[in-house]
Amino acid sequence: MDDRVRSVSEKSVQWDEAADVVIIGSGFAGLSAAIEAREAGASVVVIEKMNAVGGNSVISDGGIAAPGTDLQISRGITDTADRMAADMLAAGCGLNDPALVRVVADQAKEIFDWSREALGVEYLDRVDQFGGHSVARCYTAKHVTGATIINKQMERVNALGVDIRLHTLFTGFVRQTDGRVAGIATCDAAAGRPVDTGQQRHLKAERGIILAAGGFSSDIAFRAAQHPRLNEMIDSTNKPFATAEVMKAAIRIGAAPVQLSHIQLGPWASPDEKGYGVGPAFAEYILFQYGVLIDPATGSRFVNEMADRKTLSDAMLTMGHPCVGIADAAAVEGSGWSIDSCLKRGIVRAFDGLKELVACYQIPQAPLEKTIEHFNEGFTAGRDLEFGKPLLSQALPISHPPFYGMRLWPKVHYTMGGLRINSRAEVIDLDGRMIPGLYAAGEITGGIHGASRLGSCAITDCLVFGRIAGKNAVEVREHKRIGKVE
Amino acid sequence: MDDRVRSVSEKSVQWDEAADVVIIGSGFAGLSAAIEAREAGASVVVIEKMNAVGGNSVISDGGIAAPGTDLQISRGITDTADRMAADMLAAGCGLNDPALVRVVADQAKEIFDWSREALGVEYLDRVDQFGGHSVARCYTAKHVTGATIINKQMERVNALGVDIRLHTLFTGFVRQTDGRVAGIATCDAAAGRPVDTGQQRHLKAERGIILAAGGFSSDIAFRAAQHPRLNEMIDSTNKPFATAEVMKAAIRIGAAPVQLSHIQLGPWASPDEKGYGVGPAFAEYILFQYGVLIDPATGSRFVNEMADRKTLSDAMLTMGHPCVGIADAAAVEGSGWSIDSCLKRGIVRAFDGLKELVACYQIPQAPLEKTIEHFNEGFTAGRDLEFGKPLLSQALPISHPPFYGMRLWPKVHYTMGGLRINSRAEVIDLDGRMIPGLYAAGEITGGIHGASRLGSCAITDCLVFGRIAGKNAVEVREHKRIGKVE
Repeated sequence: MDDRVRSVSEKSVQWDEAADVVIIGSGFAGLSAAIEAREAGASVVVIEKMNAVGGNSVISDGGIAAPGTDLQISRGITDTADRMAADMLAAGCGLNDPALVRVVADQAKEIFDWSREALGVEYLDRVDQFGGHSVARCYTAKHVTGATIINKQMERVNALGVDIRLHTLFTGFVRQTDGRVAGIATCDAAAGRPVDTGQQRHLKAERGIILAAGGFSSDIAFRAAQHPRLNEMIDSTNKPFATAEVMKAAIRIGAAPVQLSHIQLGPWASPDEKGYGVGPAFAEYILFQYGVLIDPATGSRFVNEMADRKTLSDAMLTMGHPCVGIADAAAVEGSGWSIDSCLKRGIVRAFDGLKELVACYQIPQAPLEKTIEHFNEGFTAGRDLEFGKPLLSQALPISHPPFYGMRLWPKVHYTMGGLRINSRAEVIDLDGRMIPGLYAAGEITGGIHGASRLGSCAITDCLVFGRIAGKNAVEVREHKRIGKVE
Repeated sequence: MDDRVRSVSEKSVQWDEAADVVIIGSGFAGLSAAIEAREAGASVVVIEKMNAVGGNSVISDGGIAAPGTDLQISRGITDTADRMAADMLAAGCGLNDPALVRVVADQAKEIFDWSREALGVEYLDRVDQFGGHSVARCYTAKHVTGATIINKQMERVNALGVDIRLHTLFTGFVRQTDGRVAGIATCDAAAGRPVDTGQQRHLKAERGIILAAGGFSSDIAFRAAQHPRLNEMIDSTNKPFATAEVMKAAIRIGAAPVQLSHIQLGPWASPDEKGYGVGPAFAEYILFQYGVLIDPATGSRFVNEMADRKTLSDAMLTMGHPCVGIADAAAVEGSGWSIDSCLKRGIVRAFDGLKELVACYQIPQAPLEKTIEHFNEGFTAGRDLEFGKPLLSQALPISHPPFYGMRLWPKVHYTMGGLRINSRAEVIDLDGRMIPGLYAAGEITGGIHGASRLGSCAITDCLVFGRIAGKNAVEVREHKRIGKVE
């Protein structure tokens, strides 16, 4: 057993307090659930282990996907829930649970409208098409941050009188003898781990418990058990607290984990800064399109720089050390983006010549020059001679100083796998039955995004399933109903 | 909780009997463990739920992989454990646990020699190179069946006095309060399910319990939870008893499941026969190389027929219905194989002309003729014009009657995921600690083959880790040693 988390029988505890609905986690999913449950008349307690609400949600870009919106219609963009579902299934390589995908796609427009109308979230006046979406259907919260959405959720949560407990650690489930989850144990996060049981408080959930504790991108031991390459050599774009303890506790009481080894890496990240950082803006919008990725040990290219995230990340991991991306002044010019913040922080470096660049990154000069020369010959031939990368019409040979260099090494970005749920956000056990009293929503769940999540679909997922969990947890249900799933 | 399997505390049971080592399952892994444990002096009980030993092992082809063998050396084939490990990791897309791969590759030659010298298993005098292996290192048991190996294992098991209990169902673990697994509950398989606890017997394991219960290819509900496409529409090449109940029971007591959604499909299977059948011989050795795969709804090709197993299977599943493979008399002639058994059982059908073939499979005639014509033009052009499939030098246009047709639809073949183990075959929990008293080997374990298992590596894995489990389970170990893995 984990020293930290220990689930016990209801017989062995004294309840300290009770609420109708208890929610673990205060990100997009947890706060959506809290709002929905409270509006349905339930008393709601949200526990959050950190000193502030929002979890990883606050550091997201605030991108949300929805089809058939007014923003699309005013731009003449035709889109449907069917099309969004098809895009999600294609990206997920068919591993997604089709029923869960339908729920997200079917309710996406309503949830987007809800976020604007009921919560007052403001979005930029633009519709973007991110990779893997077959049409422009992505909206970005004002100030390009998930904090914009979290702040509005918190305004509503506070107005409704939801009880938010910061700095409160989940330490285990309390179960009835029939298997129903009756409540949770918590302690002050400052009490530290392992938990002295004397410091625990027991919080009864009269109606339901909602797990909205997020993914496990920063839980190195757990993610490496599922995917051995993703060890301590790999950073995460997530905050350090994105760990698996709540999910593991749920698995220990019978919840079925699904697709845990499907973990998304961002190949656009820099090993020279922590977390998401500024490097991705240069890599994703300039380097991959206009430049080359070089193995510094050989001076050679090793992949089509415009391949998908998984292909690029796998190629880098197989190489075993960071690569160096190289582009030139013409690339930055052609892209139309500013790279000032990348240069200021030293994530991207400028060099007068290739000679200075290879010296900095310790790349053998002659092979590198040959590689660049060969790449540049592609512009005469009309195609990338080595990897067949599409050459943009405005792209030019890499020959216009200053030359820009950036080191790249993938970072864990999102965990697609997690607890199995059904369309009602009920947690499902290893035999396909619901666990009475237990619900889950957001990144802690698995099966919605399959092998790969599309950008901007996470917030849609969190809001949709957060509200579903909040609504269903309030319903008084027969304890012993344990119907088969579908 | 599953009605069938319920794990309980040692306090609540009366032991009916005891053995040093208790093994669940009597396939390659279970019998290897039994031999090793018994030879080390332990009393051993093997329980097997079916009426005969051997599980799925007896229906395998009996192919085993090993590097550096006398059979290779006598043929001038250079091979090493490093090379075999690299091949396994490449096929597994880097998901494999490198430490476990090393164990299999490093001990493969020894285990192959052991099977011949200690057990007396006879192999055909040939060395084959199966797909994904970079060198010929695959040996086939006499009569091309795993039963050859199982029979020799049973000779040894009987000579050693291992207690084999057929028709005996595992119904749950018995645990000590400190988490150590102390024994199991069983019942007569005829007692049926759910189990009346009055009919259970409790078998104490003084030294260790070894889980060698196989994979879950035939457990439709469980595999579809991990991979929703693999529902009841998909058959399995495995026997119907290849189900997940023992693995699920282990997860319920804390064992970490890894990579459960990585399930191997065979694209060479026929929906017109149950199980593995005879169709794969025609599909894999003639159709894919010489013929075409057609979507009967459109008359078009839809994939490079020489793509890997996963690509072909995924393309078929995406299409959503069986495809039709078409080859001609010249293909069968060129391949040098007989298809008599395929024709006799009606899995492959012969037609005087394409007209008769399209009528049988309800393919639109004009588009199909156009597809074949376009494919045939490739022989003039020197390349497959549609999908770039390599054209064999001896291949000819599809124009020599009789024409042969076969319907294809993938079948679940092997489950790469399972229980997490370490190099000592100890079962590891969700926090990376060993579960005292619990060992596992064979297809019930996960992480050795990663995203895709290479043909003929399963038997090597089963024999190697079966023996390791048998050896380590015999060691008397301190109950409370729960060291971190690596």
